[in-house]
Amino acid sequence: MPHVTDLERRRELGQQFRVDSVRMSAAAKSGHPTSAMSAADLMAVLLDGYLRYDYDTPKSPANDRLIFSKGHASTLVYAIFRAAGVISDEELMSYRKFGNPLEGHPTPVLPWVDVATGSLGQGLPIGVGTALAQKRLDRVPARTWVLCGDSEMAEGSMWEAFEHAAHYELDNLTAVVDVNRLGQRGETMVGWDTDVHVERARAFGWHAIAIDGHDLEQIDRAYAEAIATSGKPTAIVARTVKGKGVAAVENENGWHGKPLEDPEAAIEELGGERSIRIEVRKPDPVEASRPPARALELPRYELGSEVATRKAYGEALAALGAARGDVVALDGEVSNSTFAEIFAKAHPERYFEMFIAEQQMIAAAVGMQVLGWRPFASTFAAFLSRAYDFVRMAAVSRARICVSGSHAGVSIGEDGPSQMGLEDIAAFRAIHGSVVLHPCDANQTAKLVAAMADVDGIAYIRTLRPATEVLYGPDEEFEIGGSRVLRSSDEDDVAIVAAGITVREALAAADRLADDGVTARVIDLYSIKPIDVETLAAAAEATRGRIVTAEDHWPEGGLGDAVLAALADTEEPPRVAKLAVRDLPSSGTPAELLGAAGIDAEHIVAAARRLITAPSAHVSS
Amino acid sequence: MPHVTDLERRRELGQQFRVDSVRMSAAAKSGHPTSAMSAADLMAVLLDGYLRYDYDTPKSPANDRLIFSKGHASTLVYAIFRAAGVISDEELMSYRKFGNPLEGHPTPVLPWVDVATGSLGQGLPIGVGTALAQKRLDRVPARTWVLCGDSEMAEGSMWEAFEHAAHYELDNLTAVVDVNRLGQRGETMVGWDTDVHVERARAFGWHAIAIDGHDLEQIDRAYAEAIATSGKPTAIVARTVKGKGVAAVENENGWHGKPLEDPEAAIEELGGERSIRIEVRKPDPVEASRPPARALELPRYELGSEVATRKAYGEALAALGAARGDVVALDGEVSNSTFAEIFAKAHPERYFEMFIAEQQMIAAAVGMQVLGWRPFASTFAAFLSRAYDFVRMAAVSRARICVSGSHAGVSIGEDGPSQMGLEDIAAFRAIHGSVVLHPCDANQTAKLVAAMADVDGIAYIRTLRPATEVLYGPDEEFEIGGSRVLRSSDEDDVAIVAAGITVREALAAADRLADDGVTARVIDLYSIKPIDVETLAAAAEATRGRIVTAEDHWPEGGLGDAVLAALADTEEPPRVAKLAVRDLPSSGTPAELLGAAGIDAEHIVAAARRLITAPSAHVSS
Repeated sequence: MPHVTDLERRRELGQQFRVDSVRMSAAAKSGHPTSAMSAADLMAVLLDGYLRYDYDTPKSPANDRLIFSKGHASTLVYAIFRAAGVISDEELMSYRKFGNPLEGHPTPVLPWVDVATGSLGQGLPIGVGTALAQKRLDRVPARTWVLCGDSEMAEGSMWEAFEHAAHYELDNLTAVVDVNRLGQRGETMVGWDTDVHVERARAFGWHAIAIDGHDLEQIDRAYAEAIATSGKPTAIVARTVKGKGVAAVENENGWHGKPLEDPEAAIEELGGERSIRIEVRKPDPVEASRPPARALELPRYELGSEVATRKAYGEALAALGAARGDVVALDGEVSNSTFAEIFAKAHPERYFEMFIAEQQMIAAAVGMQVLGWRPFASTFAAFLSRAYDFVRMAAVSRARICVSGSHAGVSIGEDGPSQMGLEDIAAFRAIHGSVVLHPCDANQTAKLVAAMADVDGIAYIRTLRPATEVLYGPDEEFEIGGSRVLRSSDEDDVAIVAAGITVREALAAADRLADDGVTARVIDLYSIKPIDVETLAAAAEATRGRIVTAEDHWPEGGLGDAVLAALADTEEPPRVAKLAVRDLPSSGTPAELLGAAGIDAEHIVAAARRLITAPSAHVSS
Repeated sequence: MPHVTDLERRRELGQQFRVDSVRMSAAAKSGHPTSAMSAADLMAVLLDGYLRYDYDTPKSPANDRLIFSKGHASTLVYAIFRAAGVISDEELMSYRKFGNPLEGHPTPVLPWVDVATGSLGQGLPIGVGTALAQKRLDRVPARTWVLCGDSEMAEGSMWEAFEHAAHYELDNLTAVVDVNRLGQRGETMVGWDTDVHVERARAFGWHAIAIDGHDLEQIDRAYAEAIATSGKPTAIVARTVKGKGVAAVENENGWHGKPLEDPEAAIEELGGERSIRIEVRKPDPVEASRPPARALELPRYELGSEVATRKAYGEALAALGAARGDVVALDGEVSNSTFAEIFAKAHPERYFEMFIAEQQMIAAAVGMQVLGWRPFASTFAAFLSRAYDFVRMAAVSRARICVSGSHAGVSIGEDGPSQMGLEDIAAFRAIHGSVVLHPCDANQTAKLVAAMADVDGIAYIRTLRPATEVLYGPDEEFEIGGSRVLRSSDEDDVAIVAAGITVREALAAADRLADDGVTARVIDLYSIKPIDVETLAAAAEATRGRIVTAEDHWPEGGLGDAVLAALADTEEPPRVAKLAVRDLPSSGTPAELLGAAGIDAEHIVAAARRLITAPSAHVSS
């Protein structure tokens, strides 16, 4: 039991958090003070009694992690930092102002924020990732605390997190659910029926406790119980009052995401400004040891042999895992298709089965990279669309994660359109700071997998289902941002730009064109973002602006659009005939489907011929 | 209790389903027969005793709906159709062959398939949509039956469905969970512990029954119990054996998605081929009445007034709802931000609160359109990324749904990047057959909302948070695929293409350029897909290929790329200076953030000036 003086200090600290939230949002003229006020007591007890954190070494694996899944309660995040003595009152007042790190929703521009939140339902799945890293990778006694809103319990991703946390027996994870009953627009489906939340958490294998979220002793006991619980994570389901402490807004609908009308009166009602400073308890030092680095020995594939790039992904990843102790792998229950299983067999202690829960898979990867691990997450390219919001937010989190999407495009064949990744290039290109790779052969894949591990951001690799001929020797080097000119002469009539499955179609097309005396430059554009502008510009110039692009992807946002964008603002933008999948595909053999989509050699030849005979401004210049 | 003869027929029917699954996958040399075999008895009893369906009128609201959430059990879908007498044995053998409707995973190219499945975790949320339409819109006694796999219970979207189905008291919805224990790669987290599934379903408010999924009497009783249960949906948790009936594969790992090795022996073991024909019980006729259509009276906004396009969306949608009885609205707990609340107040019986569950929101819309309703689903543009896989699959389902994403881009201001839709145009453009609209003023928004209701596919509209000046009179017409030239002369020096918030920046830029004697054509490209190629080509020609595009979106896949793609394969592709959001935004005022992103009038002016003075092939031609 805490002492009376502890209780009093904690009560005052909660009030300070409320006052600071009112002050910040009043100064910013926006923000979500009432959502911070409901959780203030929960966080006061955590900060004062349970969190173990050294603010001087935020990335240390010894530290606990505190994630605000309800990121809109950002004033509470910053009020905590002020109480911990790491930001000043003046900084506090810069909330939401341009050029300042106290953003509307927390982001890692502040060193004590691990991940960006604000898209609800993400903090808890990310917390599963940090807790996994603490318990299974770093193997340290540190804990992960996640403050969740009750509205976000409607997001399915929360239940992915509940199931995975229990499956992995994450007793170092505590979810604190702030049940203030009110969402942005009105009451949640569950309302104040905390028993429902408790029953659900228990059905998903958690220890769960219902408490009054404003009773400091109950809060204290709940945290103690969470720490004492072994073998399963704990959910503290706290009944709270939105806007607690200010009668004008307490438990009132219509006050979400708004500053208070009379902040001065509210501050007075809350007992005025305070400047309590908490010495947050530091963790005991830990030694997080990682397997030492070894020389990388990538798999080597014989020229002319037939290997699926997805297979090369798995083999290269396993090799990378042998060379680098920081590489971990996750997969969405298709590791025998993505070939992540090769890594799993080689490095079982660094492999995490995420089952059919793509959101949790990406979130866990984001959590693990917080602690310096280098996660590679894989599933079918099509199913990465399930986790698109998590990838989007990973970029806001400045996360370093590697993602592999297998079974790209119509070349998968018989399984049909639901399994074909046809929008993945567009989706991943439109992620801030991303790298998008689409190798065509096994040796190239292996080199790019190794390169991905050093990308500072989101690195995406797209792999193929069918086995394809090895075009490059095992000693060729491939850089991110590069390309490979496979055919060229000084006087090429046309350039064909391809990647992945269409590279062989482009080569076959060039052969057929050559039979008629047409010389085609063939470019393997394996790095779609960043893109090799120089090589493309040279091709445009050499061919007097005649480029055919061929991609196993929708026409929008893919390889063709990337080529256009690369050359858009140049003196002589080329004429580009863009071959892509325009009709909804069906089942069939890969060859039938490539033909039906108009992206096979025959269609490339036809497009090249048309371009050569078409009128062109460049030709006349 | 069913008669002995009924039991025998059902047992034989289940074996027929198994034999047909083995035959189909053997002929196709691919497919998932073992996943069909576990569910064969469950579907035999349903087809023979409980499903009410008239195969001659598949779209009739009187019919029950049967959705295979585990779409990979497609051989079972087609075996049912054969038993029901609507496809021949010869058609059955065309499974997965190019040019035939029996695709690898079911799609609506067959009239008795309502929606495409194959991306797990979607069938049940879609079933929530059909059940809602049956119970709350058509108000008919028809039921929705959903066959779920146990692996897909790991998808969070399933729990969104569980929660919403209970919240809406969908006692006409039955989930049949085929607990065969084995996923693609191994055992699920729950295994054969059906009690866990039952507890979770109950904690989410369902009636739940655990049965032996191969005991025909237990199955029969469970269906009867589901029908007799009122006020809540029912989950039948059936313990089954994957590959049931063929010893070589029964309950064996490693047989997912593979034809059997010895199909002839398997067929013999299953008792040989059968040709049982079931007269599926037809439903009683119903009268589904819809409110009559009335003349559409869209809201009218005064020129020069300031109205947010999101507000116009809500007001136009409410007006559309008054004119058309088939229009329904759904929102993800932000209806006071998207202004779907205006529709909700006007037509509460056709409004569905989907809480913070974007996947369920889109899935429910897909389900409702199966029954001919015209759903409009809304949330922040950024959060639609949460449902991207559902939108992707909606296109494979040939669904007609309208989607509104509010709070586009950096112009939202202080809330920061987690709330900014900056990838939505790229994402929605890369959806097959989609329409992508981005109006800049209230009257334009109203006209486009009305036009969306007639789109045959996925129609997306992107709206703005801030109030913007009304530029168009209420009588101007705007068509999908059109654009509006706001400034032009015969000898324009440059064209500026904009949409949404950047239209006013483009106009301001044109004014500043005019002060220096530079004439700029300004195009409001409100329809980004389809795109007005003719107007763009004319602008390229008039300006001798000098175009500036300005968008509040990442550079990839947005307005600029759409313009480039539209003019890529033309005689003289223009030089395009693409202004877009290139750095990760922060909090700030809209004006600060537009400036920081380089998409405001000042930056447009600079880009235009640069283009005019830059060397250009066109200029010399």
